[in-house]
Amino acid sequence: MSKTECSVEKTGKQYRPSVHFTPPTGFMNDPNGLVFDGTQYHLYYQHNPDAAYSANICWGHAISTDLLSWKDQPIAVPDTIDGQAFTGCAVLDTHNSSGLFAGSHGNNIAALYTRARPGRQTQFLATSRNNGQSFEEYAGNPVLDIESPNFRDPQVVYHEPTRKWVMVIAQVDQHNIGFYASNDLIHWTHLSNFGPAGLPTVNYECPNLIQIRDESGALHWVLFVSINPGSPMGGSVTQYFIGTFDGAVFRPYDAILRLTDFAKDAYALQVWSNMPGGEAVNIAWMGNWQYCQELPTQDWRGAMSLPRSMTLRHDPNGYLRLVQVPRGIESLRHPMLTEQGAYLPADGRREIALPRGKAIEIVIRLTADESRQTDPNASGPVIERFELAFANAEGERLSIGYDAPSTQIWLDRGKLRGFDHPFFTGRFAAPINGAVYSNPRSVDLHLVLDGCAFEIYANEHLETATALVYPERPLDVLRLETTGVGFTIDSLAIYTLDKTMCRETA
Amino acid sequence: MSKTECSVEKTGKQYRPSVHFTPPTGFMNDPNGLVFDGTQYHLYYQHNPDAAYSANICWGHAISTDLLSWKDQPIAVPDTIDGQAFTGCAVLDTHNSSGLFAGSHGNNIAALYTRARPGRQTQFLATSRNNGQSFEEYAGNPVLDIESPNFRDPQVVYHEPTRKWVMVIAQVDQHNIGFYASNDLIHWTHLSNFGPAGLPTVNYECPNLIQIRDESGALHWVLFVSINPGSPMGGSVTQYFIGTFDGAVFRPYDAILRLTDFAKDAYALQVWSNMPGGEAVNIAWMGNWQYCQELPTQDWRGAMSLPRSMTLRHDPNGYLRLVQVPRGIESLRHPMLTEQGAYLPADGRREIALPRGKAIEIVIRLTADESRQTDPNASGPVIERFELAFANAEGERLSIGYDAPSTQIWLDRGKLRGFDHPFFTGRFAAPINGAVYSNPRSVDLHLVLDGCAFEIYANEHLETATALVYPERPLDVLRLETTGVGFTIDSLAIYTLDKTMCRETA
Repeated sequence: MSKTECSVEKTGKQYRPSVHFTPPTGFMNDPNGLVFDGTQYHLYYQHNPDAAYSANICWGHAISTDLLSWKDQPIAVPDTIDGQAFTGCAVLDTHNSSGLFAGSHGNNIAALYTRARPGRQTQFLATSRNNGQSFEEYAGNPVLDIESPNFRDPQVVYHEPTRKWVMVIAQVDQHNIGFYASNDLIHWTHLSNFGPAGLPTVNYECPNLIQIRDESGALHWVLFVSINPGSPMGGSVTQYFIGTFDGAVFRPYDAILRLTDFAKDAYALQVWSNMPGGEAVNIAWMGNWQYCQELPTQDWRGAMSLPRSMTLRHDPNGYLRLVQVPRGIESLRHPMLTEQGAYLPADGRREIALPRGKAIEIVIRLTADESRQTDPNASGPVIERFELAFANAEGERLSIGYDAPSTQIWLDRGKLRGFDHPFFTGRFAAPINGAVYSNPRSVDLHLVLDGCAFEIYANEHLETATALVYPERPLDVLRLETTGVGFTIDSLAIYTLDKTMCRETA
Repeated sequence: MSKTECSVEKTGKQYRPSVHFTPPTGFMNDPNGLVFDGTQYHLYYQHNPDAAYSANICWGHAISTDLLSWKDQPIAVPDTIDGQAFTGCAVLDTHNSSGLFAGSHGNNIAALYTRARPGRQTQFLATSRNNGQSFEEYAGNPVLDIESPNFRDPQVVYHEPTRKWVMVIAQVDQHNIGFYASNDLIHWTHLSNFGPAGLPTVNYECPNLIQIRDESGALHWVLFVSINPGSPMGGSVTQYFIGTFDGAVFRPYDAILRLTDFAKDAYALQVWSNMPGGEAVNIAWMGNWQYCQELPTQDWRGAMSLPRSMTLRHDPNGYLRLVQVPRGIESLRHPMLTEQGAYLPADGRREIALPRGKAIEIVIRLTADESRQTDPNASGPVIERFELAFANAEGERLSIGYDAPSTQIWLDRGKLRGFDHPFFTGRFAAPINGAVYSNPRSVDLHLVLDGCAFEIYANEHLETATALVYPERPLDVLRLETTGVGFTIDSLAIYTLDKTMCRETA
């Protein structure tokens, strides 16, 4: 896609992201069939092309060479008489283990997904001989049927040590993840179940299993499990477990419940298969079933997060946790402001004009002055905060802040007026442990605001928040404000990002 | 306390609860030393009598015969040269196992608590010979010192099968709970550690161990662990684990992370010891370290939840979970409105005037009409909601609602204007599973609004939300509203509650 093609800036409510993937029209939820075929990345997705709510779900499709500029493709897996095409995966059956690719001259892309009809969910296998443009369903489908009304979202990985395909799949109502093995993607043998584990909930969905490296280079098995409803923040959330997998049983290292996000719009996280060098990359649906069908866009609803590279790191409290870094957006950057060592005194304020209609990326690192808490003459609690707000003259604010005494950050989208819904939570928070820095009064924030899509990464990407945001009017000024103490802005870079996604409707 | 004494109603901002316990003046956080001495219930509490923020913490004290009408007592454990008097427990040493009660003619109340000075937290034993009015510290203190700067909040239970006192105590930074045993409350032997388990966090605090009955009458060991910060809702939260305890090791039944509350103002939950019949009763601090020292009351800050009887029950999703029922408030009720079988049609609205300055209790059960979702001509998602709002003419609303299609409830305190703080989250939600009723479209809510103290119990008390609320003006009307579908109000009872706590400042 040429940049010129996308040069027309939208006016009015600028909810369409320009870098985040959104459907051309209609409704989108979970990412599906994420696979790198050697040349192209595929992004399939749960899609209703006819209306901006969930119904008659098929697999939409887009391809990219960089995970950011996506070309729309025809519907890849339609809704059929066998049911809606629910979430699933795609793998390369390079050695034709299935026997279904005889004579194929392209990439052997096999998809496994759930056919959902009332009262029954079964797993289907389909193969593509045209590089993932369309799929032929295997004649012997379903390949897995346990006579369950709620059994869905298969993801398949190739397990080298046992030389088997391994499927993880949600036993939705039983609150566990089934593990199955196969030599041919057709015949599946039950291995084990994992769960219940983590939060009490109603439904388990969208398991994903992948190996991820920690800071020492060691590989760990990570199992992502989406649950809905039952998030402590309300509705839908992705939890994950870190442990061992021997080809049959997943065993978590510990009894810790980890969430991928401290806001509430990162559900159904999925990972790409066949990534070169075993790179671990995810994408999540920016949505929450509490309000995803009522969002204030008329022609389309649903966005994907940025693609994120994943590693694991021990956080300052000793927990091994996920580190998510938005992948490849450096190539889209146009520096707008870069500075180092600026100082904002206590109760100071600074404003920076922002262009309208462009995705904005901000990378900032701050250090609070020495706390007045140590002053024996101070009475009462010491309030020492830094706030960064995307704002406008109409009084709307999308606020991110750092509370230095408690080393916590906040996200406040509640002062935006474009969407009011009883489940659309305004405020979120996460502890930040300054021990990642030599100065424990330091914090870093990495922000991307792109239409209705907002992402926060903090504490060297140990914390991630993914949030839909709906200002009534464009947010065209950045406000930096301090309360109670001065802050050194060790470094600040503001970029606009080249548009990679051109969509006709706002 | 006579009711007449409390008959003067406050004007202006009515933040002082009339049924919930609050400190006479100054700051209050964790409940401490909860014990029934055979006649009186004792409520000690973390207290700064001199200012409404945390400093120079001592143990405040109140006594009651019903857990609702509290008589203030003198400071029971002062701040001393050995450090602040941090959280701890009280037990009856009836058989003088400590040897410190020789010649005592009252109840042998022994307190164990943390003395906190910079860099060191150690456990102190103290005994009272005047029914808990004051304590004499044991000459050999500390009774437990592991040379840790963050080792606190001992709770002691008598374990009958092993005939030992067992202490649970937070190894704050190690994220585990230490278990210790003693024959005499003086000499303590390490038994085991439990954790890390549950949410990644910064600090573990306030462990409490107690046996609680399930719906079949079977007893289970429950371990409460407060963590701060690290709640998914932000800041402070109480998690709990259900399992076995053999006198040495606590083993949870499962890997489920349970929270006591779906809002964010129920921290440091503690249980009464020596309750007749083994009744399990807790009280929690209505506060969150994210904002507890900045609440919009000037002379006092901090409230206790209502006392709550605890049982365990398998929820409709199969999880064994805590059931909390406010204890004894029936005796305070004055019926204001009682009705059965009223009907509110789709998009209907009803208003009921509420008296100002009184605690209000509402018990309501609803059933939604059959869903329009089954209508083949319906297009788009079906919105079917019931909202109950404490409101006023100035547009403030404290909203509680039920979303019938997703069977979730919400709490929205974000449309009240008396307190704005970046960590003061407005909206909370919990799934409700209608399977507790014969009609899955039914839901029950049990609400208590008492000054700044608001409590929600739902789904036959399987869900609890505890929230501080700060309207700018009194909420003097109850609004019932439906969206998209009619609701039968199977039963509705509104009560005012007799004032049990008379406080001079608002």
